[in-house]
Amino acid sequence: MSNTEKIEIDNGIAPFPKPAVLLGAIIDGKPNFMNLAWMTRISFKPHLWIMSLGKGKYTGQGIREQGKFSINIPGADLVVELDYCGITSGRKVDKSKIFDIFYGKLGDVPMIRECPVCIELTVNQIIEMYERDLIIGEVKHIYTEERFLTDGKLDQKKINQLIYTQPPGHYWTLGSTIGEAFSIGKELKA
Amino acid sequence: MSNTEKIEIDNGIAPFPKPAVLLGAIIDGKPNFMNLAWMTRISFKPHLWIMSLGKGKYTGQGIREQGKFSINIPGADLVVELDYCGITSGRKVDKSKIFDIFYGKLGDVPMIRECPVCIELTVNQIIEMYERDLIIGEVKHIYTEERFLTDGKLDQKKINQLIYTQPPGHYWTLGSTIGEAFSIGKELKA
Repeated sequence: MSNTEKIEIDNGIAPFPKPAVLLGAIIDGKPNFMNLAWMTRISFKPHLWIMSLGKGKYTGQGIREQGKFSINIPGADLVVELDYCGITSGRKVDKSKIFDIFYGKLGDVPMIRECPVCIELTVNQIIEMYERDLIIGEVKHIYTEERFLTDGKLDQKKINQLIYTQPPGHYWTLGSTIGEAFSIGKELKA
Repeated sequence: MSNTEKIEIDNGIAPFPKPAVLLGAIIDGKPNFMNLAWMTRISFKPHLWIMSLGKGKYTGQGIREQGKFSINIPGADLVVELDYCGITSGRKVDKSKIFDIFYGKLGDVPMIRECPVCIELTVNQIIEMYERDLIIGEVKHIYTEERFLTDGKLDQKKINQLIYTQPPGHYWTLGSTIGEAFSIGKELKA
């Protein structure tokens, strides 16, 4: 058997890189944050992202009640705090003191000052499916800092966002650029 | 103004890393492949992933007709072919000759032998939303090769999957591991 022979493996895994972010909402009068990796953009206009949360999630309850929430994109220096928010529930511990919290144009949506990028969203709809809540959020405002820009645009390498893969559960940094999209493929067009 | 002051930027961007994959289906009797980055897992049981495709997509038509499709995870060595599949439509060019195609247990679902990981899915449902088709697929079979395993498990670094960020549109490799998930956060629990 050649070493390029395909073999079947456990079909319970999802072997692709995922963004690691922190969702924020007010729940029971306090800011709370949860770790989330099951997220993607789904639409240009309106500008929609989808997130899959377990039904019982405390932060999810806050998002449902408020109809708005935040997505905070942590840099690699926040890996401990990010993971902590994933292994604890706001029902049991107070996560409102971990970060320096600020508020933006939507008002009472808590955001994390230590995160290079913070986004305010409103809830477009929630689709209940099996044991999950699929929260579809519409992006309203994106905040960053001058030091994460290059030529006025967000610089992915300066953000230095964490990436999550599993199994085994690991956080990674972004590596090197290897090609420009909508461009490098042109050489096959000849 | 300190350099940690938050500023608002263009709210049309989605500044987080996305997996870059190739969807495969038979359409008009021929295998076709498209480049996709708007994808995430959404459920454990059943094992569901969601993908957002523009309504007119040729591959999307094939997925709808067949009720099954493949997700092929390219390594960094396939960046040119991946991008080519994103800037061309199967309506105009024949993409059935770019790759060495193989078939698995679902039968007529084309998969790419050059890709380290290939996945067969059935369509669970398609949700139409604005100008997008949200395809929810159930993972049925995952194929790889011995050379991408370490101790019998898929090794993310050996797969060397591409990551997509935008804007500007760039493909990246994965960097370094910086922490174990569900573990590194425990130090804050003290």
